[in-house]
Amino acid sequence: MSQKYSTRAEDYSKWYNETIERADLAENSGVRGCMVIKPYGYAIWEKIQAQLDKMFKETGHQNAYFPLFVPKSLFEAEEKNAEGFAKECAIVTHYRLKTDEKNPGKLIVDPEAKLEEELIVRPTSEAIIWNTYKGWIQSYRDLPILINQWANVVRWEMRTRIFLRTAEFLWQEGHTAHATKQEAYEETERMLGVYAEFAENFMAMPVIQGRKTESERFAGADDTLCIEAMMQDGKALQAGTSHFLGQNFAKAFDVKFTDSEGKLDHVWATSWGVSTRLMGALIMTHSDDEGLVLPPKLAPIQVVGVPIFKTDDEYEAIGKKFDELALKLKALGVSFKYDHDKNRRPGWKFAEYEAKGVPVRLAMGPRDMENGNIEVARRDTKTKEVVSFEGLDQHLVKLLNEIQNNLYQKALNFRTDNLHTVDTYEEFKTRLSKEGGFYLAHWDGTAETEAKIKEETQATIRCIPFEHTGEGVCMVTGKPSKQRVVISKAY
Amino acid sequence: MSQKYSTRAEDYSKWYNETIERADLAENSGVRGCMVIKPYGYAIWEKIQAQLDKMFKETGHQNAYFPLFVPKSLFEAEEKNAEGFAKECAIVTHYRLKTDEKNPGKLIVDPEAKLEEELIVRPTSEAIIWNTYKGWIQSYRDLPILINQWANVVRWEMRTRIFLRTAEFLWQEGHTAHATKQEAYEETERMLGVYAEFAENFMAMPVIQGRKTESERFAGADDTLCIEAMMQDGKALQAGTSHFLGQNFAKAFDVKFTDSEGKLDHVWATSWGVSTRLMGALIMTHSDDEGLVLPPKLAPIQVVGVPIFKTDDEYEAIGKKFDELALKLKALGVSFKYDHDKNRRPGWKFAEYEAKGVPVRLAMGPRDMENGNIEVARRDTKTKEVVSFEGLDQHLVKLLNEIQNNLYQKALNFRTDNLHTVDTYEEFKTRLSKEGGFYLAHWDGTAETEAKIKEETQATIRCIPFEHTGEGVCMVTGKPSKQRVVISKAY
Repeated sequence: MSQKYSTRAEDYSKWYNETIERADLAENSGVRGCMVIKPYGYAIWEKIQAQLDKMFKETGHQNAYFPLFVPKSLFEAEEKNAEGFAKECAIVTHYRLKTDEKNPGKLIVDPEAKLEEELIVRPTSEAIIWNTYKGWIQSYRDLPILINQWANVVRWEMRTRIFLRTAEFLWQEGHTAHATKQEAYEETERMLGVYAEFAENFMAMPVIQGRKTESERFAGADDTLCIEAMMQDGKALQAGTSHFLGQNFAKAFDVKFTDSEGKLDHVWATSWGVSTRLMGALIMTHSDDEGLVLPPKLAPIQVVGVPIFKTDDEYEAIGKKFDELALKLKALGVSFKYDHDKNRRPGWKFAEYEAKGVPVRLAMGPRDMENGNIEVARRDTKTKEVVSFEGLDQHLVKLLNEIQNNLYQKALNFRTDNLHTVDTYEEFKTRLSKEGGFYLAHWDGTAETEAKIKEETQATIRCIPFEHTGEGVCMVTGKPSKQRVVISKAY
Repeated sequence: MSQKYSTRAEDYSKWYNETIERADLAENSGVRGCMVIKPYGYAIWEKIQAQLDKMFKETGHQNAYFPLFVPKSLFEAEEKNAEGFAKECAIVTHYRLKTDEKNPGKLIVDPEAKLEEELIVRPTSEAIIWNTYKGWIQSYRDLPILINQWANVVRWEMRTRIFLRTAEFLWQEGHTAHATKQEAYEETERMLGVYAEFAENFMAMPVIQGRKTESERFAGADDTLCIEAMMQDGKALQAGTSHFLGQNFAKAFDVKFTDSEGKLDHVWATSWGVSTRLMGALIMTHSDDEGLVLPPKLAPIQVVGVPIFKTDDEYEAIGKKFDELALKLKALGVSFKYDHDKNRRPGWKFAEYEAKGVPVRLAMGPRDMENGNIEVARRDTKTKEVVSFEGLDQHLVKLLNEIQNNLYQKALNFRTDNLHTVDTYEEFKTRLSKEGGFYLAHWDGTAETEAKIKEETQATIRCIPFEHTGEGVCMVTGKPSKQRVVISKAY
């Protein structure tokens, strides 16, 4: 590859964009702020979807589908929610185009096809779903409702970045309805737990679980739980949220149920979601200056085989060995690709699969054949070893596990190294600007102090972690603090 | 069940709506023309998706995702396509709501947030995709591109019916790019073949494969191939289409490639799609007056078990037998549900699973236990048999296959009985109005005659079938005809 790419140290943001481009994951589209997810990027998203979907079903949820559009009158029913999303929503006002008489071949919006009521393209679906749940719930016997939806949503963001912040994105949104506050709260916690498990065991991305401050809550929620991950530039990325919605939506949409004793009450609600943003998190957690690094559990191709040959006979013979391996790996559930393309040189292929983050690359030449060996290269450590072809399949299964664990451990070490405990505002400010990273600091619990920190440092309180750290005094005001919070700059 | 439902004979249309309601598949939403797909309906759609996705991947396609919105200037680039969809598209004109000052708590469209260029909510994605492909294709080495997308689309239909015609629907759309006309045409045919195989082998729905007449083609296509199925009221339902787009979109979006000899040419294209309309086809092909009937291959629950008990001991003992069975069925890949609910009587459950179309229902009481037997009821034939519990798992696998085949055969017999060959326009008109069904008739190939038939009978030429039937003379004009076409009323 002759092109020179940016390193993380030189320009992290450029490196991020180039890593996406080199791995052929996605690109900006001809529509402002919207991305095209290319086949390789989408294949990773499919792995993410499949695993999460399995975990949702194992915790008793079913999928369903609700409309893309929300009539304005429904959208505004829950006032806080409406207020929170009103400034960034795409609005459908007409339902027909017509030929421009002054300009044949061009189309204009037909003024006679104006909708009586405007439709909001869903930025999130609480409104349309709770308007539907109203018809489904009469008695405690109809509860709980445990539904998830895989969908596209639109939020008209002014500054967009592929995967991290796009006008349209793909996500899943769980929407559950419960008879009691406690049950709804347990669901909120359970789903945060599912997200944390997915992040750590599949994305190999350590996360801090906690609760958002009031000012960072989801619009319309009584409580927002979140998982926060540290990217390689020390900034935080909110990777998933689970909201306890109290009775807010049930009240806004008048959803009541009769309990087992005949008493009428409003229903309790949760919602929770993760999005294609996780793709950004995945990229920024593991990748290096040579391109994407993928944890094996989410890699569309886990192992790639490259033949090194000069003659057709060699090509044939090596091909046979790889075919033999392919069958064994298929039986073991390992996703393997044999790159038999004769028009690309091995060096080109090595660079290609490196940029695409394939966890293990195998190479075999005539001498390896003779010796019954094969070269095994790890993407994560960039190390190579020559191993016996005999028993290679089992060796690869072990190796993929090792890579998965190594990536998690590496990311955890990085976070440990960049998670600082500070006691004074001065130290916080100095270190934040010099070192970045996460800061465990005491905060007095007021919105004023939170706003001051944000204004003066651009850092935000990412969460009030579940793991308690003892009492103290606020680093800014000196007032009492019940526990340390996590503060950092964020995506 | 005390409620009286409509039969097919009494009111086919009402029966269709009630079947959907009784099986809890979907419902109309608070948004004009948009439906909510409920969990059980969505579970069937997931089975359809999973199987089609597998077949697309086996034929070399990859999934990707393109934006929901199409800027107006891109939308109008391919004129015929634009003209075809202009009259039924939802248009986003603004990107922000604001508080109504005259009416606090209410929101209005912010006139200052008007988009410079309107965005069309995709009714189909050729325009946005070909605008993207332009950046991906330079040389023959970049071809073919074989991509599929699972997405929602919006067509502002005035008269809507759940699954059959909704303003928003879910679908997949394949979009491929090729170096030669022949290769593109072969792809068009291959994907129609995939649809036909899916319809017949999975939906148990026989289809006629053919070509649309020019006036029924997809807007922007040079040729549209289709599969047409016969519903139980004798009307046709177009179940899938595969379009040969020629170089129309490549020319509209200026997508050229250098061939292996260095010559520059426009790229050849196909697109193909099936939608949640298939759910409507599935319902109308097999269901009866007692509710939904599902082919086992697409049934979310293939076998359901119901305990018949009076005492807790009986309940426990029967439960154990069903647990034993559940393990065996899981190993065989049979989807089994044991309904252990103590609050519902067996009769209620029987009616419930009948309405939901579960292919096989098992019932076991204390006497069956004693005798080592179980009652097996088939949904398709409404027959019951008592069989030995020993070897039940293998028996069920065979039975599910038999049901799948029986449903296909039954639908095929129905179609055979209702597919008529006619030679005069008089006979056609008389029989069409009396008997309905499909008619194989000669047509002179002109749009005039086609329009006349449609105007006078409301029937349309569904397709020019691939299976030739010999030459003849047009039943309307007496002019020469190369082959018979399929004519019927349609959904």
